[in-house]
Amino acid sequence: MIPDTTPVELEQALAAAAVAAPAFGTSEPAVRAGWIRTVADALDGAADELVPIAMRETSLPEARLRGEVARSTGQLRMFAEVLEEGSLLEVIIDTADAQAKPVPRPDLRRVLVPLGPVLVFAASNFPFAFSVCGGDTASALAAGCPVIVKAHPGHPELSARTAEVMIAALASAGAPAGSFGLIQGFDVGVTALKDPRITAAGFTGSVPAGKALHEIAVTRPEPIPFYGELGSLNPVFVTQAAIDARGKDIATGYVGSFTLGVGQFCTKPGLLFLPAAHGLQEQLAAVVGGVAEAPMLNDRIKDGFGSGRDRLQKVDGIRVLASGSATLLQTTVPELLARRDEILEECFGPVSIVVEYNGLEELRAAVEAFEGNLTATLHAEGSDTELAAELLPLLTARAGRVLWNGWPTGVAVSWAQHHGGPFPSTVGSIHTSVGVTAARRFQRPVAYQDTPDAVLPDVLKDANPSGISRRVNGTVTTGEVSR
Amino acid sequence: MIPDTTPVELEQALAAAAVAAPAFGTSEPAVRAGWIRTVADALDGAADELVPIAMRETSLPEARLRGEVARSTGQLRMFAEVLEEGSLLEVIIDTADAQAKPVPRPDLRRVLVPLGPVLVFAASNFPFAFSVCGGDTASALAAGCPVIVKAHPGHPELSARTAEVMIAALASAGAPAGSFGLIQGFDVGVTALKDPRITAAGFTGSVPAGKALHEIAVTRPEPIPFYGELGSLNPVFVTQAAIDARGKDIATGYVGSFTLGVGQFCTKPGLLFLPAAHGLQEQLAAVVGGVAEAPMLNDRIKDGFGSGRDRLQKVDGIRVLASGSATLLQTTVPELLARRDEILEECFGPVSIVVEYNGLEELRAAVEAFEGNLTATLHAEGSDTELAAELLPLLTARAGRVLWNGWPTGVAVSWAQHHGGPFPSTVGSIHTSVGVTAARRFQRPVAYQDTPDAVLPDVLKDANPSGISRRVNGTVTTGEVSR
Repeated sequence: MIPDTTPVELEQALAAAAVAAPAFGTSEPAVRAGWIRTVADALDGAADELVPIAMRETSLPEARLRGEVARSTGQLRMFAEVLEEGSLLEVIIDTADAQAKPVPRPDLRRVLVPLGPVLVFAASNFPFAFSVCGGDTASALAAGCPVIVKAHPGHPELSARTAEVMIAALASAGAPAGSFGLIQGFDVGVTALKDPRITAAGFTGSVPAGKALHEIAVTRPEPIPFYGELGSLNPVFVTQAAIDARGKDIATGYVGSFTLGVGQFCTKPGLLFLPAAHGLQEQLAAVVGGVAEAPMLNDRIKDGFGSGRDRLQKVDGIRVLASGSATLLQTTVPELLARRDEILEECFGPVSIVVEYNGLEELRAAVEAFEGNLTATLHAEGSDTELAAELLPLLTARAGRVLWNGWPTGVAVSWAQHHGGPFPSTVGSIHTSVGVTAARRFQRPVAYQDTPDAVLPDVLKDANPSGISRRVNGTVTTGEVSR
Repeated sequence: MIPDTTPVELEQALAAAAVAAPAFGTSEPAVRAGWIRTVADALDGAADELVPIAMRETSLPEARLRGEVARSTGQLRMFAEVLEEGSLLEVIIDTADAQAKPVPRPDLRRVLVPLGPVLVFAASNFPFAFSVCGGDTASALAAGCPVIVKAHPGHPELSARTAEVMIAALASAGAPAGSFGLIQGFDVGVTALKDPRITAAGFTGSVPAGKALHEIAVTRPEPIPFYGELGSLNPVFVTQAAIDARGKDIATGYVGSFTLGVGQFCTKPGLLFLPAAHGLQEQLAAVVGGVAEAPMLNDRIKDGFGSGRDRLQKVDGIRVLASGSATLLQTTVPELLARRDEILEECFGPVSIVVEYNGLEELRAAVEAFEGNLTATLHAEGSDTELAAELLPLLTARAGRVLWNGWPTGVAVSWAQHHGGPFPSTVGSIHTSVGVTAARRFQRPVAYQDTPDAVLPDVLKDANPSGISRRVNGTVTTGEVSR
């Protein structure tokens, strides 16, 4: 049993983060990259110790958890690489223009600087990748912000041990003390969120918790940005041509996706829209019947899943297509539209709904029934180009990631990734929580006007001694790399 | 007398903006650039009609207002140019990588899309550049968002007429009806801010109004981003070496800057920190004595200035250095620190405070007394490099723009500009309201996964038919320009 962080310990963590912030934030990008790589190496080195703790606390299987460690450390190394490359600083230089109209233009050099200490509320369902050493932490450290993680109560010992490994690694690499800290306890997290030394917060979790914390963050005496990933239904729409071409694969892929990780993914496909004549009932039932029993993260989540699934099953117009270790429900578009709010409520766990549509008008109406989602998926064929051209803008308006002939579970960590979406899937839809651009959440621009080279940060000097990518007078250029 | 917008008219404006949003937002960037250029041309063409209305409603002089029109239309044309160049879309492409570890990577193509209808609360002090046709409007239109401007009551007729010119220009250019609208009235603005069809808001004005509107925006059932520019003191710090080298120029430049536009600039230098032995009292008094009388924007602002100045003058430790059309006060750093909250309260209008410091410790303490500001300025010489290297990080932590040997009034419109700053100078310090990157406030990313070329937006297609700048597999490349 890990006790809650005491008020004295919380004060120490906040004070240490505030003290660390200037040195951590003005560290050379390449130096910070080294610190972050040391953390990645230490976590990889500690995997044999950490994974068994995670298995015990989350009931997730070893292979999945080892994959998560690799994902998390790969993510840290990606940020280290990008820090060295320099684009993360978004340097823009406009040299002086005495002839500019209507008035002469001064020399302006813009760079992104870190906000300061960041508070991260860890998620339960990815004990590595969206927890202590997850994407919010990695992107905030890359941005130059000290991080305090509020541990998820679902894996307190893993959180404590992960933090110890990270803190030791940062210290051994020479990062300022206070660059990273961990706190435990619900009230402790709320107190930290209200503290003036915290300059931004990241969150992954439920809609009610996310909305409550968001409101605290944005109504503080000094409001701060709050990036919350709340809930998502991740609908999948399938055309008749796709069914004709690969109906059985779609059935198998769908069940695999909504039961992956016992349905405990924020990108779980919650609804699959099939043409009424899909003929896949038996196939779907057979695949669902073959899903192996697996424990959920904890009893609270298991109970929540049970009551959510029971509630869904009782909604008028919902029928059970198959049930066992996983539950597959079914309904039709008119029935969904008639009870939209009841049916379109996320149920975390291995349950999903097949929704049959009759004709393209019902398909369109189904797409338009959705609010913001992390993802929306279309399964279609080459012959559907016209239909796809019509549907993709509707999906784009409702989702942060639009998939073609794929499944939304699995979020690649790369430059182009966007993990976010219109409300209520996130608050802060203009930012991502996964991928390189996630760091932008924790940075603000500063422009230096007519400031001499001698006192400018290196990345803004004429000679570009760090050789980073910069936009100079409108054009992106890469300097001479002198290192 | 222009009446408030009626509920029926407001509903029409909101409905029209919502209807226009998909077509306006998915218009080809080059097409939208053409629409924006037509607006700029129409405003330039209407200047002879608009400027006299502005002179009557704001009491600002003709030359200043003509300059503002040129600034506003130049700003629109800058966004048009950048739209064609393509960087505004921040396209990032990661092609599939079957060998990626720990898991294969799909093809991901990210682009920024518009949020939807944007509500802009216009400012009083720049009836063109931060009003109906100002920076918020220009950047939101460039982003692809229909705009509804809530007119400032200080220039209602100018607002109405400017909007008519813009609406006619957009219609003549072929933009969707509803791409732009204007509303008048305080309660009308609040109602619009609460409307679910509004997806983001920009604001320039006072701290209390900005905080109240911010709270409405972020606590709506569907919270939206609120970008508010509130208040700023814009301190200027001068070293002894700078005084020795060009003390008289500094005195003249300072008075010119704090009385520019009758002190009605958000970037007005509110405090000038001079070494105690500066010897510029007489010079400062003489320049202040020579400032010509000029009317303020309106009686409300004039009254607010009068009472604010009187309040400041009565603060213990504040002495009058010179007064006439403008007022120059003086104090010392210890006195300022003793009555920090009373002295560091913005007073909009032609008043500023000279603060004398004794030694570098007092200078440092003075810098550290400030919260967030739009700007902070250092006047120093080559011999001050060491001191400057120490002070610049402190200024960077407190301001969005750091100036060297300049004056903060005058905000160049360019790629590198940043007009923003830590709270309370803005809410939303990670974004700018001036410069190319201001459009980023009104865009959200969407990533397309494994989506075939045939149905992707042109800007994401392999061949890059629009020839825009894109980041492909981590490296920024410019495609073949085929237009």
